Amino acid sequence: MNATLAEIAEWVNGRVEGDSSLAITGVNALHEAGPKDIAFVSDESYLNAAASSGAAALLVSEDFPRGTVPLIRVANPRSAMAALLTRIEAEHRQPPGNVHPAAVISPNVTIGERVSIDANVRVCSGSVIGDDTVIYANSYIGNDCVIGPGCYIYSNVTVRERVTMGARCIVHPGAVIGSDGFGFVDVDGKRQKIPQVGTVVLGDDVEIGSNTCVDRATMGTTRIDSGTKIDNLCQIGHNCHIGKHCTISGMTGLSGSTTLKDHVTVGANAGFSGHLEVGENAIIAGRAGVTKSVSAGAVVSGFPAIPHAQSQRVLAGMRRVPDALKKLRELERQVAELKRGLHGTAKDTD
Amino acid sequence: MNATLAEIAEWVNGRVEGDSSLAITGVNALHEAGPKDIAFVSDESYLNAAASSGAAALLVSEDFPRGTVPLIRVANPRSAMAALLTRIEAEHRQPPGNVHPAAVISPNVTIGERVSIDANVRVCSGSVIGDDTVIYANSYIGNDCVIGPGCYIYSNVTVRERVTMGARCIVHPGAVIGSDGFGFVDVDGKRQKIPQVGTVVLGDDVEIGSNTCVDRATMGTTRIDSGTKIDNLCQIGHNCHIGKHCTISGMTGLSGSTTLKDHVTVGANAGFSGHLEVGENAIIAGRAGVTKSVSAGAVVSGFPAIPHAQSQRVLAGMRRVPDALKKLRELERQVAELKRGLHGTAKDTD
Amino acid sequence: MNATLAEIAEWVNGRVEGDSSLAITGVNALHEAGPKDIAFVSDESYLNAAASSGAAALLVSEDFPRGTVPLIRVANPRSAMAALLTRIEAEHRQPPGNVHPAAVISPNVTIGERVSIDANVRVCSGSVIGDDTVIYANSYIGNDCVIGPGCYIYSNVTVRERVTMGARCIVHPGAVIGSDGFGFVDVDGKRQKIPQVGTVVLGDDVEIGSNTCVDRATMGTTRIDSGTKIDNLCQIGHNCHIGKHCTISGMTGLSGSTTLKDHVTVGANAGFSGHLEVGENAIIAGRAGVTKSVSAGAVVSGFPAIPHAQSQRVLAGMRRVPDALKKLRELERQVAELKRGLHGTAKDTD
Repeated sequence: MNATLAEIAEWVNGRVEGDSSLAITGVNALHEAGPKDIAFVSDESYLNAAASSGAAALLVSEDFPRGTVPLIRVANPRSAMAALLTRIEAEHRQPPGNVHPAAVISPNVTIGERVSIDANVRVCSGSVIGDDTVIYANSYIGNDCVIGPGCYIYSNVTVRERVTMGARCIVHPGAVIGSDGFGFVDVDGKRQKIPQVGTVVLGDDVEIGSNTCVDRATMGTTRIDSGTKIDNLCQIGHNCHIGKHCTISGMTGLSGSTTLKDHVTVGANAGFSGHLEVGENAIIAGRAGVTKSVSAGAVVSGFPAIPHAQSQRVLAGMRRVPDALKKLRELERQVAELKRGLHGTAKDTD
Repeated sequence: MNATLAEIAEWVNGRVEGDSSLAITGVNALHEAGPKDIAFVSDESYLNAAASSGAAALLVSEDFPRGTVPLIRVANPRSAMAALLTRIEAEHRQPPGNVHPAAVISPNVTIGERVSIDANVRVCSGSVIGDDTVIYANSYIGNDCVIGPGCYIYSNVTVRERVTMGARCIVHPGAVIGSDGFGFVDVDGKRQKIPQVGTVVLGDDVEIGSNTCVDRATMGTTRIDSGTKIDNLCQIGHNCHIGKHCTISGMTGLSGSTTLKDHVTVGANAGFSGHLEVGENAIIAGRAGVTKSVSAGAVVSGFPAIPHAQSQRVLAGMRRVPDALKKLRELERQVAELKRGLHGTAKDTD
Repeated sequence: MNATLAEIAEWVNGRVEGDSSLAITGVNALHEAGPKDIAFVSDESYLNAAASSGAAALLVSEDFPRGTVPLIRVANPRSAMAALLTRIEAEHRQPPGNVHPAAVISPNVTIGERVSIDANVRVCSGSVIGDDTVIYANSYIGNDCVIGPGCYIYSNVTVRERVTMGARCIVHPGAVIGSDGFGFVDVDGKRQKIPQVGTVVLGDDVEIGSNTCVDRATMGTTRIDSGTKIDNLCQIGHNCHIGKHCTISGMTGLSGSTTLKDHVTVGANAGFSGHLEVGENAIIAGRAGVTKSVSAGAVVSGFPAIPHAQSQRVLAGMRRVPDALKKLRELERQVAELKRGLHGTAKDTD
């Protein structure tokens, strides 16, 4: 980036307070920003960090106090910063390229306009790659896949045969889409694999984190609907159906045939035992272990997951158990004493 | 697939009830099946799903009620479906191919009959690839490995040097076999790496899930015996020994030198602290954290894992703690009152 | 290896007890060692294993009892074994090679002396690879990275653009460094990605485990300082800062903006909720879920993590809750009886 504050203000629909000709070359975190950087202040909890920042300028809300460096004021600093970062990211992104000669693409593959495919990518027979899609080096697209337009598939990704994804999906490095579900049947006391002949369908604007695994259905389809974002190192079992605009944090696992309805939010390292349904807008806390269906709008936590308020009471109660056990012993002693006193049979020799 | 019900019935050793000339082109999940699909009903819990399915025909047990669509009746629908899926999967699998010209294979590698090695696979010096084995694009086989016959190694897999695997193993995309164990020694207050010079040996029919990691032994061997199936995103530490026909669900971690005897079943996201032994046929519940050895046949859950029945009692007890604390306070009040009453010394001024 | 006991003793600065001309060809675990192997005995808990070992010789401490096989005595068997394994590992390592003709390296990449780059590696424009660094097959180095001297980057690794690492780092197979942080902003009710334009900086001697993910900063830098070792399948969120000489065991997750100071030790499968700080020399137990900052030197466990001693008391208390509930019921009964007795109003008909 190389822009004046005035230019940046125009990009983010903001208003400069201070020297609008100031030259800015980067955007940085408050505590790392230097004399050519702009940083942003999302809310009041960062006031101290802002005061001690070395940033040349700050992107702030309308009610941020006047400071010692020039400001750009906007209605929503967080979305303004997202807009600014989008612009900067475009500079880092590889230009719409061509198919690298060291990519290995089977004869009957259909490749759209302005597609970039880097070296050592393998695209197998029958697959279709949409316009403007970028595939980074060393990724694998199996037979008969359909990759929508405007997708980003980073390096070392595996997309196995017959997987379909919509427009503008982002698949981070090392992710695996369409691997076998984990299903076996015991025949004559011997564990035998159930072949997994289904597939995976991703909607539009789906994001799959690094080294996350999405298993194909045993039969039918594992579905992740439009707008859903999944973080790194997650496991999505066979025949799961994740609705639209869900957010699933890292290291979360969904066992087979779990259904999440739209707009479900899941914290990190949660788990779902499978064959259950989570209603719309439910919130699953980090580390929750969900063992039965969850109602729409519910907030659950703990393992097994229960309503969050109850879970907090149980937790608070647990912490008090050691003391309560002492009190219980003391009460037992007192009651025993009372009984002796009442019945007048004891000599209280101890 | 393109077959009549009569043909399918013959494949799965079943009996048609209804129009045996019906043409079937696919197999699908009950809720996704269409007018050319057959679906299967594993047990009575799916009766409603079966009634509302759009499937053209159903694969069912002998005692399934007569329905509105043609049926194939078999003794065990689950194993019949596995047999049918095996046949369908064979259609999707790549034909026994050749070594792709863009595979990079060192001079002194031994390659068996009918081996398929796709583009960008790297096989290093001294390795042996068994007959009928298939290696998908972009995988890596280090020096001096022995890959048995009939194995499937999917894309982006890493098999590091001197790893051995038996016949018919399946290694899913992104899995890593033979990476360094995590071992350090503090020398003069500085953490120093302990080189990991051991290896990994897999038996026959072992399955390693996507992005699962199996560390090589510090010295000696990390072993996974025949028939064991490991799901995605698991971690098998250095010097572990997993017996025959174990099943380990996703996101489970075994610290170094854990031993599982034969036929152990482990739920998802379980953990083992290492240097412990789990007896034959033990069952480890999902999310269990196993911190000491487990007897043969035991069922354990919780963290730290204890016998499942006890763990359930503890859990039920925990849920009742908040109420119990209230009762305890009430009892304390009553006992204090009783004491005042008995000793007649209090004036009850408050 | 092919050496006499006398030679090995010299390498590890030890003293032979027995036949110093004995020929040794391997080093192995006690229970796997054969008649040409040396094994080591770290401490007294392995005395029985040592007695039943088939090893030709043992590497032991000064106070180890005299045995039936020749011994090499050293001050610290563990660090002596590390020294011996380092020597053996050097034999297994690939010789300093050249850049393989099937590596795909952009024109303006700077490659140091004695660098090995194997087939199908992709190194993008502007990157610098330090002297003596080894990059295994099928890895990816994005634009403008700086890889220090003496690094080992195993196969199928992704290092995204602008990542920097110091000297002698080891990146295990499938690891991903510099993938996008997981950040979104809701604009007009629609979840929108916050571009992640920061980077990752690793110090010297950092080790990143197999399939571990280190996210780049949203803005600024995700930092892992010198000497820190991270095990397999860990997740390091955007803008984390991990100090020097930390040890993080497998399957551990750090949410965004977590700070670990120097010399922090983290057990397996722990989690950190982000925007918190863990002080120097703190110890976080396996499976701990850390939800707020931890003081220097503290030892915490449980979820939410609390001081370990307290956590153990809570756990012990929980186990006694089912019994305590019974006692509580009995006390309630006795108190009711006492009240009836005291007030003389009950007839005790039941």
